[in-house]
Amino acid sequence: MSNSEHVIVAVDAMGGDNAPSVVLEGVAAALEEDQNLEVVLVGPADIVEPFAASHARCTAQAASEVIAMDEHPAEAVRKKKDSSIVVGCRLVKEGAAQGFFSAGSTGACLAAATLVVGRIKGVSRPALCSVIPSPAAPVVMSDIGANADCKPEYLVQFAQMASIYAEKIVGIENPRVGLLNIGSEDTKGSQFAQQTFALMKEKVPNFAGNAEGNDILPANFDVIVTDGFTGNVVLKTIEGTSKTLFGALKDVMMGSFTSKLGALALKGGLSDLKARVSADTYGGAPLLGVKGACLVGHGSSNPAAIKNGVHATASVVRNRVTDLIAEAVTK
Amino acid sequence: MSNSEHVIVAVDAMGGDNAPSVVLEGVAAALEEDQNLEVVLVGPADIVEPFAASHARCTAQAASEVIAMDEHPAEAVRKKKDSSIVVGCRLVKEGAAQGFFSAGSTGACLAAATLVVGRIKGVSRPALCSVIPSPAAPVVMSDIGANADCKPEYLVQFAQMASIYAEKIVGIENPRVGLLNIGSEDTKGSQFAQQTFALMKEKVPNFAGNAEGNDILPANFDVIVTDGFTGNVVLKTIEGTSKTLFGALKDVMMGSFTSKLGALALKGGLSDLKARVSADTYGGAPLLGVKGACLVGHGSSNPAAIKNGVHATASVVRNRVTDLIAEAVTK
Repeated sequence: MSNSEHVIVAVDAMGGDNAPSVVLEGVAAALEEDQNLEVVLVGPADIVEPFAASHARCTAQAASEVIAMDEHPAEAVRKKKDSSIVVGCRLVKEGAAQGFFSAGSTGACLAAATLVVGRIKGVSRPALCSVIPSPAAPVVMSDIGANADCKPEYLVQFAQMASIYAEKIVGIENPRVGLLNIGSEDTKGSQFAQQTFALMKEKVPNFAGNAEGNDILPANFDVIVTDGFTGNVVLKTIEGTSKTLFGALKDVMMGSFTSKLGALALKGGLSDLKARVSADTYGGAPLLGVKGACLVGHGSSNPAAIKNGVHATASVVRNRVTDLIAEAVTK
Repeated sequence: MSNSEHVIVAVDAMGGDNAPSVVLEGVAAALEEDQNLEVVLVGPADIVEPFAASHARCTAQAASEVIAMDEHPAEAVRKKKDSSIVVGCRLVKEGAAQGFFSAGSTGACLAAATLVVGRIKGVSRPALCSVIPSPAAPVVMSDIGANADCKPEYLVQFAQMASIYAEKIVGIENPRVGLLNIGSEDTKGSQFAQQTFALMKEKVPNFAGNAEGNDILPANFDVIVTDGFTGNVVLKTIEGTSKTLFGALKDVMMGSFTSKLGALALKGGLSDLKARVSADTYGGAPLLGVKGACLVGHGSSNPAAIKNGVHATASVVRNRVTDLIAEAVTK
């Protein structure tokens, strides 16, 4: 991936639990690291205008409304036409920006990207995709929650779209696709999984068979495909398991004087491991299948996660992921 | 739970990756710890007869066939009428034993328990249940793989059955039931999850709402109810995540001389933590909804896991779990 191509990314100044301060810090870092990046910062004028005035390659786009995390996504998108999320997506739709990044409400971003930016022709359902930060190797999973109810043919497209993302953005050559299922044999699983297996075998050349829950974090497959219900539950299960285990480990380390000394000796390696399994590394979940690069960051994103999310959005643009998806799904 | 009541448990001598040696060791330990336990050891005569002859309260039941882990479960159960799994279930059916424990093929145990022992009247689908060993508190999850395709009313019964197990066997008073879903709000989720939510609210008094993936290991609910597809994927995801993280932690600890010293200081605490998150602690997954106590152990069970599994089976008998389930589902 080269950064030599000039890219314009719209960024939601109001997205995330600690917006706007964390977003502004992340955008400043992103601009500094990528001299061919231009940011259109979207949000209340009194926030975005002073920032744009004091940063090179940054322009301000006023948006008077904000969609809160707990609002009903589709309703909020319909009602708040001047919200930072809807305005950001409109900039992409109108060509004023090539991509949009927000650490705000995932549901609202999904709704706005689908309604305002629009689906790529031939894509049945845009899918949310996530790079699971495993200590073994990054794993791309899709769908992680955009589509709670799926048909087998949707998953074929999820596989095609996530494979392009894995190859072009995450840098995994010839990604191997696994269908999340409850047994490794071809005939295993629910009726839905069995039907999907047959279709994947026929239509996805890099399909490598069924993946089980314990294949995900060991990175036995590069791409894991599943419906948005299972994917969302699994992603949150990994987060919860990881958090609980690190918490219990901390209790062990703080248990006695000796263990505290031991913990001190491990400090560097442990911070390293924690960073490797942190969602912040990849900065955002791309919504694949819409006509533009739209990525959603974690609500709890820190400045580094925002920076990585903005870079990932630019990377999706530079690598023509949208065009590649359009080609793949019409084949 | 009192061990004062005499209980007869049939045990599959040939179940598990390291059968029969690990099973025999586990049975010997179980018999020694529980003086009111009697075991009928089921397997090839040359294995079970010498063992029974040399152990008090143990009788032998010859079974000439063995169902391998990779055989098609229902087919194997139909064909191998003299297999240790089928014979063990027949002992329960005929009243010669009150419970059956095997660390063999889960699918074959499910099939045999359903076909040979039979469903409790009123139970739509027997469910496999697991105690997830969290560092926070034990969590009972059902279904973990017996029913890949479910109807909402099945999950109501899974909730009723798992609640009884949580209360009587795991010792959780007034267990709070969560429906595994992809959002905490009442209206979230797939169509299936939404329909199930409505039915749970109406029929399960201890229903406490939607649980998300990251609610499982922190034990925010005592009982997690889901379909067998999602449950199986989630359980294996927890196993895979836990294993991968402990592996990465080991790498950190072995990384340098200083970190090795640190690891030494933490050794006791870490073994303790590992034991707390080990599946061996609870020894077996009960198949709830059949007319007898049938539990399945992990294929990789060690002698302690076998012992715990046999004890859990006896405990299911002593606590009249089958009767309580029969009462609950006909209400």
